[in-house]
Amino acid sequence: MRIDLNCDMGESFGAWRMGDDAAILEHVTSANIACGFHAGDPGTMRATVKAALARGVAIGAHPSFPDLQGFGRRPMTLRPEEVYDLCLYQIGALAAFARAAGGRLHHVKAHGALSNMAVREYALAEAITQAARDVDPQLVSYAQAGTELVRAAEKLGQPYASEVFADRSYQDDGQLTPRSRPGAMIEDTDAAIAQVLRMLREGRVRSITGKDVAVRADTVCVHGDQPRAVEFARRLRQALSRDGVAVAPC
Amino acid sequence: MRIDLNCDMGESFGAWRMGDDAAILEHVTSANIACGFHAGDPGTMRATVKAALARGVAIGAHPSFPDLQGFGRRPMTLRPEEVYDLCLYQIGALAAFARAAGGRLHHVKAHGALSNMAVREYALAEAITQAARDVDPQLVSYAQAGTELVRAAEKLGQPYASEVFADRSYQDDGQLTPRSRPGAMIEDTDAAIAQVLRMLREGRVRSITGKDVAVRADTVCVHGDQPRAVEFARRLRQALSRDGVAVAPC
Amino acid sequence: MRIDLNCDMGESFGAWRMGDDAAILEHVTSANIACGFHAGDPGTMRATVKAALARGVAIGAHPSFPDLQGFGRRPMTLRPEEVYDLCLYQIGALAAFARAAGGRLHHVKAHGALSNMAVREYALAEAITQAARDVDPQLVSYAQAGTELVRAAEKLGQPYASEVFADRSYQDDGQLTPRSRPGAMIEDTDAAIAQVLRMLREGRVRSITGKDVAVRADTVCVHGDQPRAVEFARRLRQALSRDGVAVAPC
Amino acid sequence: MRIDLNCDMGESFGAWRMGDDAAILEHVTSANIACGFHAGDPGTMRATVKAALARGVAIGAHPSFPDLQGFGRRPMTLRPEEVYDLCLYQIGALAAFARAAGGRLHHVKAHGALSNMAVREYALAEAITQAARDVDPQLVSYAQAGTELVRAAEKLGQPYASEVFADRSYQDDGQLTPRSRPGAMIEDTDAAIAQVLRMLREGRVRSITGKDVAVRADTVCVHGDQPRAVEFARRLRQALSRDGVAVAPC
Repeated sequence: MRIDLNCDMGESFGAWRMGDDAAILEHVTSANIACGFHAGDPGTMRATVKAALARGVAIGAHPSFPDLQGFGRRPMTLRPEEVYDLCLYQIGALAAFARAAGGRLHHVKAHGALSNMAVREYALAEAITQAARDVDPQLVSYAQAGTELVRAAEKLGQPYASEVFADRSYQDDGQLTPRSRPGAMIEDTDAAIAQVLRMLREGRVRSITGKDVAVRADTVCVHGDQPRAVEFARRLRQALSRDGVAVAPC
Repeated sequence: MRIDLNCDMGESFGAWRMGDDAAILEHVTSANIACGFHAGDPGTMRATVKAALARGVAIGAHPSFPDLQGFGRRPMTLRPEEVYDLCLYQIGALAAFARAAGGRLHHVKAHGALSNMAVREYALAEAITQAARDVDPQLVSYAQAGTELVRAAEKLGQPYASEVFADRSYQDDGQLTPRSRPGAMIEDTDAAIAQVLRMLREGRVRSITGKDVAVRADTVCVHGDQPRAVEFARRLRQALSRDGVAVAPC
Repeated sequence: MRIDLNCDMGESFGAWRMGDDAAILEHVTSANIACGFHAGDPGTMRATVKAALARGVAIGAHPSFPDLQGFGRRPMTLRPEEVYDLCLYQIGALAAFARAAGGRLHHVKAHGALSNMAVREYALAEAITQAARDVDPQLVSYAQAGTELVRAAEKLGQPYASEVFADRSYQDDGQLTPRSRPGAMIEDTDAAIAQVLRMLREGRVRSITGKDVAVRADTVCVHGDQPRAVEFARRLRQALSRDGVAVAPC
Repeated sequence: MRIDLNCDMGESFGAWRMGDDAAILEHVTSANIACGFHAGDPGTMRATVKAALARGVAIGAHPSFPDLQGFGRRPMTLRPEEVYDLCLYQIGALAAFARAAGGRLHHVKAHGALSNMAVREYALAEAITQAARDVDPQLVSYAQAGTELVRAAEKLGQPYASEVFADRSYQDDGQLTPRSRPGAMIEDTDAAIAQVLRMLREGRVRSITGKDVAVRADTVCVHGDQPRAVEFARRLRQALSRDGVAVAPC
């Protein structure tokens, strides 16, 4: 058994800092690096790629809607073609930093509102996946389990990693409980870790209504911007090791 | 004898049009395509790359200072490292569009104020050239003849094309006469074409003071934003053909 | 009887031109001037304000979502508070140019996707209107007839102008027929002019299903970006004069 | 005797925080608020204006070159007319927030590289001052003592405050010692406070070569982005009070 731990990073911009990338890099195996549209100027991209490579952490592009002020969290209505174009642009830019640092781009994971919309709208999911494919048919699409992003990767034949969340509850249809609903977040660290371990061992998750739902877990999303992020990542990794689960990039 | 004709293009942005790329593509052999920092949104980049490929025109990245409002024409004081980062970003982005369209990136030519500063400041010239090199050691650096851009390419061992101008006069040191001085522009089309032909045949140009100056001409810059640009490109190409000069990418 | 003719302008940006403001200014009485978020850099704002003042055309702010690349035409999901903030910012900026030129800001009209959303969503309509009110309680809100923008102005007690369209058909509920539906556009110039004249004389419009619908017409929107815009404005104005309708700002 | 303590603030942007505005507002009398070009989105501007008003701190606009990524610290070569335009835009935007919050704009202080260039280049100094004047002839221009900003205010007849620094040393000509030179910074808090008190009492400062130089001190710049900023502001204010110096906006 093996799993990947991924985390968003490189989300500083110019004079502004965000997150403690150095600390979180000690505990994760994949870095989703901001590409300049919601965060991450070119200098930050270079530094983050270098830091990830130095720790053997896989480098991923984390493309977003063009919305620095809203940190890519505000829904925008773009045509799929526009989404394809802006993903291709951002993935290409980050790929150059990976190559320049002697590494290579490993995966793509959409950010914020773009991701939230793509998990439900197939045309957007396909646009993101096709952009990844057109940069490199070997790029791994990090696709939220059971969503349109998975469907798009399967249809296009692009390798993908089914992404799960430790600290979010699931609904009966295998989708995340929206944050606006009660019970969306799993606050208890032990419960969150237990959820991941069961996903791995049994391929199932207990839904918010108590039903067992099938889920495939290739990578776990670790939220780097939360206060206890580093501590959670450390404990999750510890628990996985104790259970004999290898922690490695997809 | 052979020469390349290069022209800036893809300089529309969003709802705004600039230049007549379709017409100019009929006459040039290299396209310097805007990468989003002074012009050229992702959709425009895709369309321009496609149009260039369809006509067999070589695709180049045309990186700029980050200054949409000033069209990259306003000098900015950036550290060489910042220039490296923003060039790597822009070149990487355009390279992805080239690859996605089934082509490949062929060259890099800096835009506007960035280019004007780099011809005189070695550290900037090296930053641009190193960024090109780190994307692909085969990328051709389009370097204004006799400038720091040539020195940087020679020092780094990057292939380069010595770029000359048809419609600009030269000084005794082989540099362009600044636009602010009288006689900087060669208004007469026949004289401009004759200047190029002599550069090619004899490797020399008559300076503004009447001295013969050595110059190497691998590529000629055609200004796409001038009213008679298409007509000039057509006539130059005709004259070159008549003289048995092959017109092809570097 | 009197009516205002309003038109969007100042939509150039940096090196890019859009529209023929000088020509259209000869025929309209109100200018909706872009404020930098979808078009209109500070220099363009200054020049446009000056040109409008010189022709006695009323100056209005034309605030937009922050989306230069999409020309403010792409829907964004922003909180009403964010809409208030960005409208206040843009209206304040344009008001300074009006004052500096010896004039004063006269009205506010939301642009593109922001306007399209505000006509249906009261919270957005109120945010825009409150921003206008907080800059100056005398600013006239240009509010599409029969929409939430009218309701917001009435509720806040802000002066408003009920805006109608010459070249768009109306539905039975007094709303515009969406552009996606057949019959949305009135292509025939005589029919478009006749629709405006009847709105003025009778306060009614014939809907797309043939029903008579009440509508109040204080200002007519003239589209500056259409090929025949200047010609249409000239003919509309001529017809209004012939019918004894005064054409003047609200 | 009286003096003003001014500090830059509102320099957060979107999801990114900068500085501890709430703490520093307890100790200063004037706030120079970022206007969106180097920092400070519309929401941050509203919040900062409100916080300053609540503490009776005077509200100033802090216009900058358009350079979010470089935090307005990178020199740009703009024509004076362009500087006028972008200052008018930014000052107008902030003035609207001041008015909407029931206050009024009190002063203008240029930021970063724009300020550094304007202290030496009269045309830029005049452009900034004229923009302030065109928004309101009563706006106080915060002008570094002995520089072109003072000259511009005197020539245009705009009220100004001569600004001094506590923690920077002065040269024989009354100008600040450039940061690149040894001795530019006064690290010792007591020495920094003593320098301000002597400027106030005697109108003189001991230059870096030991000469006494005349200087007029109307306002002292407190750096909000330094670790000990709050502590320094508190101690400076204490010392001023002990000496019977009133601390109040200009």
